[in-house]
Amino acid sequence: MNPSGVITLTTDFGGGGGVLRGVIWGIAPHAQVADLTHAIEPQNIRMAAWYLTRQVFFFPEGSVHVAVVDPGVGTPRRPLAVQAGPQYFVGPDNGLFTPFYEMAEERGWPLKVVHTDNPDYWLSKVSDVFHGRDIFAPVAAHLARGVPIEDLGTPVTAAVRVPFPRPQRNGDELHGEVILLYRHLGNIITNIDRPHLNGIDPAGVTVQFGGTAINGLARTFGERQPGELIALFGSNDELMISVVNGSAIEMLKPEIGDPVLVRF
Amino acid sequence: MNPSGVITLTTDFGGGGGVLRGVIWGIAPHAQVADLTHAIEPQNIRMAAWYLTRQVFFFPEGSVHVAVVDPGVGTPRRPLAVQAGPQYFVGPDNGLFTPFYEMAEERGWPLKVVHTDNPDYWLSKVSDVFHGRDIFAPVAAHLARGVPIEDLGTPVTAAVRVPFPRPQRNGDELHGEVILLYRHLGNIITNIDRPHLNGIDPAGVTVQFGGTAINGLARTFGERQPGELIALFGSNDELMISVVNGSAIEMLKPEIGDPVLVRF
Amino acid sequence: MNPSGVITLTTDFGGGGGVLRGVIWGIAPHAQVADLTHAIEPQNIRMAAWYLTRQVFFFPEGSVHVAVVDPGVGTPRRPLAVQAGPQYFVGPDNGLFTPFYEMAEERGWPLKVVHTDNPDYWLSKVSDVFHGRDIFAPVAAHLARGVPIEDLGTPVTAAVRVPFPRPQRNGDELHGEVILLYRHLGNIITNIDRPHLNGIDPAGVTVQFGGTAINGLARTFGERQPGELIALFGSNDELMISVVNGSAIEMLKPEIGDPVLVRF
Repeated sequence: MNPSGVITLTTDFGGGGGVLRGVIWGIAPHAQVADLTHAIEPQNIRMAAWYLTRQVFFFPEGSVHVAVVDPGVGTPRRPLAVQAGPQYFVGPDNGLFTPFYEMAEERGWPLKVVHTDNPDYWLSKVSDVFHGRDIFAPVAAHLARGVPIEDLGTPVTAAVRVPFPRPQRNGDELHGEVILLYRHLGNIITNIDRPHLNGIDPAGVTVQFGGTAINGLARTFGERQPGELIALFGSNDELMISVVNGSAIEMLKPEIGDPVLVRF
Repeated sequence: MNPSGVITLTTDFGGGGGVLRGVIWGIAPHAQVADLTHAIEPQNIRMAAWYLTRQVFFFPEGSVHVAVVDPGVGTPRRPLAVQAGPQYFVGPDNGLFTPFYEMAEERGWPLKVVHTDNPDYWLSKVSDVFHGRDIFAPVAAHLARGVPIEDLGTPVTAAVRVPFPRPQRNGDELHGEVILLYRHLGNIITNIDRPHLNGIDPAGVTVQFGGTAINGLARTFGERQPGELIALFGSNDELMISVVNGSAIEMLKPEIGDPVLVRF
Repeated sequence: MNPSGVITLTTDFGGGGGVLRGVIWGIAPHAQVADLTHAIEPQNIRMAAWYLTRQVFFFPEGSVHVAVVDPGVGTPRRPLAVQAGPQYFVGPDNGLFTPFYEMAEERGWPLKVVHTDNPDYWLSKVSDVFHGRDIFAPVAAHLARGVPIEDLGTPVTAAVRVPFPRPQRNGDELHGEVILLYRHLGNIITNIDRPHLNGIDPAGVTVQFGGTAINGLARTFGERQPGELIALFGSNDELMISVVNGSAIEMLKPEIGDPVLVRF
């Protein structure tokens, strides 16, 4: 797969990432670099993984996605480069890329996982606490310039995986949970996706959260009244709970992991 | 007008915009993409419009400005592409571009407004809730590559406009209002501009907000003492109320729409 | 020194910087522009200077670093362009670049300081309150395009400097202080660096802050338990106080300037 010359950055830094661009442009001067987000909750691997799945496939084939959510930095956890189907990934071996391993296996995509232990592709000095800058960024820049992924180090057969909770069907109930609070817009994101409700009439379902029940799914915000609590599919087909022109997070005070029940 | 290859992004997402770059670079791989702001208050069309007027004319002629503040997404509100004088705009037909229609009319600029209903220039799959990604970003990328604006869809004769409050002169008083709270620097921005006070001695005016009166306009922050409450013209000639090395917002607790009175 | 074509931005705007890209790309259409940070505390010159020292040397030789932390804008304080060894800087003459003057002098690097008083390299209209946009950004773009620094204005012999507190050794004690609170990750950053403790056994030191003593330095977060208060060297060899998977700032409520004592 030819590199697209595009590199993205996903971190829990809360801002910045500027220094990563410096490292990248020192190696790949013409790389296009995009921030996906720097607002991952500190060390929340699941949130980062979820965020990546929603964004990376909108990038050109052969883009490189760097993820720095790295509680184990400086321990023997491995730095990885991954090719999963049309996209490359670079980051720590802590489960961040689990959904992409699973997609590749389910869809028969090419899957290559490499322990990037070849220091020729690192910065010359590597710190104990910032592999994002010292290993991941330079490795990503070399990938974006066309270095074959195999050259970056040793093949990995058993990468770390983290379980991603999937909703459970039980008769006419679907038991899911809250997996992301999108605070700025006030939306509560669940792990229930549109395909989980295939063939079911959206007008006939009830979404239950805490003591609150929402009858029927909305198609858009604009078809309901300001202030109304609604459930609808978001821009990536995820079921979310929202308030039109308001905040469902303020109204319902959810926590990550809270149960969400869909009855049909 | 030749495109400059530059695309800007203005949203109420509160961060991110990364996925828009993915879409853009898939179509226009060399586009330069700048975030204007992602901190528009959710669905505050007037704030976004005001913000755009202050920034876009510092970009090269032929730049494309994407604005995604879109409470009506998924309803029949139209997606638009606009050429107003030296700049292009892409976004929903909800009044966001009103100031540019007015400028074009006042100054005799070319003004083209197109309903971007030609799906050849959209992503192949369009969601109900994120036209920023699925329609506006790809349309902007095609414009930046040189697709003529006329090819994007059907001409629009009556685009939606929203009223922008203008200050009212009444004898030796000018009645304006607060239109933006710039929280990080603590500045209160009004809809009164330098030209409204043309020919008037800045030392002789009084700016009144709530129970507070400020005598005379400062020229810069640096000429006054730390902690002093001042009124001065900002970087785009807008009258603002500020505290030197402090926050007028904390001191005066303003709200958007609060009246501001200038006496001379 | 040839320009790299890379320009970075460091400001206290709290976001944005978009308009600076517009100005830059109008002059240098192919410049790569990176945000270092826009989260400098308003008008905190020392914080900006410290931040720059940690980042700029990861950028390619000949990059241009624009810093807009500018309490004196509109007063007679001079706008500057600086070459200090392998990097260029553009910003106000208020002490922001002090560490780079000192590095150049200590290391025998070339050091050129120019008062950018040649208006050929400014925007045609210059405001009293936003030299970042009207002077610094265009000057940086001209530098990035290859205009020699000498052409930008008049040589400066005595640039403004601000004192940067250095830790003081006193027998077996090193007296430093808090210079940055990195709030998102909860880390307390001190002005004590790894070289200050050269030759000293990290296991044998005690770091004292307020009434709290931390025995021994950790090498990484991953080698300690979640919730543990630790002291360790950060990604730029600065001594910092942290809580594993938590926030030392929340735990210890530090202020900038608070004393930090290392005993060995």
